[in-house]
Amino acid sequence: MVTGKRLILCSNSPRRRELLSGLGIDFEIDTRSSFNESIGPENTTPEVLPQILAKGKSLGFHRPLEEDEILLTADTLVICDGRIMGKPANEQEAREMLRFLSGKTHKVVSALCLRTSAGIREASDTALVTFKDLSEEEITYYINRYKPFDKAGAYGIQEWIGYIGIPGIEGSFYTVMGLPVHLVYQLLQ
Amino acid sequence: MVTGKRLILCSNSPRRRELLSGLGIDFEIDTRSSFNESIGPENTTPEVLPQILAKGKSLGFHRPLEEDEILLTADTLVICDGRIMGKPANEQEAREMLRFLSGKTHKVVSALCLRTSAGIREASDTALVTFKDLSEEEITYYINRYKPFDKAGAYGIQEWIGYIGIPGIEGSFYTVMGLPVHLVYQLLQ
Repeated sequence: MVTGKRLILCSNSPRRRELLSGLGIDFEIDTRSSFNESIGPENTTPEVLPQILAKGKSLGFHRPLEEDEILLTADTLVICDGRIMGKPANEQEAREMLRFLSGKTHKVVSALCLRTSAGIREASDTALVTFKDLSEEEITYYINRYKPFDKAGAYGIQEWIGYIGIPGIEGSFYTVMGLPVHLVYQLLQ
Repeated sequence: MVTGKRLILCSNSPRRRELLSGLGIDFEIDTRSSFNESIGPENTTPEVLPQILAKGKSLGFHRPLEEDEILLTADTLVICDGRIMGKPANEQEAREMLRFLSGKTHKVVSALCLRTSAGIREASDTALVTFKDLSEEEITYYINRYKPFDKAGAYGIQEWIGYIGIPGIEGSFYTVMGLPVHLVYQLLQ
């Protein structure tokens, strides 16, 4: 679909690798970016932050791009009651995040950036996710068994907690997982 | 979660087996049911048909249930513009179904039946799924590569066509895949 171009994914997320594979496109992985995720700009609307971070990861790539290369970067954040949630630092923070999400509907914003030596294309997608009331037992079981420390909001919708705890979403399941694959496909065409 | 009971899944669908595994419950598989799916009652509201079929599969199980057994059966149908879609019989029917779903929002209804020697519990869930406009090339590629002849509506949301073609859903992703796992969990508790 992208004739004569080599796609490079710059992401440590195994979910993003799996999702990109599902598109049936060949790609390489090179995660070397000097961008520090924790350096987010202050006073930004939460909804545009993933877009800024995805672009930052792209611009921080460790070397200039060749003419035949496309670099893909992405970022995902959870927003609940105006609070922005990235990855939990430890078990306690994961527990606290899941307690906060329990019984509520929150937003998941996933943004992506496609960059070539000639220019940048960006896209962002938002999905709404509703959790049932989670019990302490369910939260404990999930954290102990799945260790969701590499996931925004401390959960993976494709894991046990998503099976038992999420009666519904509004938007793309893959956006919630971390990569709006329909937009990657659309932009690459 | 179900103390002293053995769960039996009566379904040929590999997706249902995978989804039930994700709940972290032990179960056995026994697909012997005399129920013929094609014998659907006439003049029924499409939305209640999966419930009737799930119950039919349960009652057609090849032997009586022991006191310590729970039998799980399920059924899924796609409803688009009032038309009920089960599994496509061949490539031509699959192509025709995907053309019909292209660019529209349709309903997916998944029902389940949990039966013991003492009684029956049933549940049903509906999700809305929106397809972008699918090109003939996309439909051909998908059918040739994924052969979706065992899937209601001729598509799997977890496959390539779901990645590139579905910008969003309203409801449970797992209901669209064929088993409302949140309801299985809830009913088993």
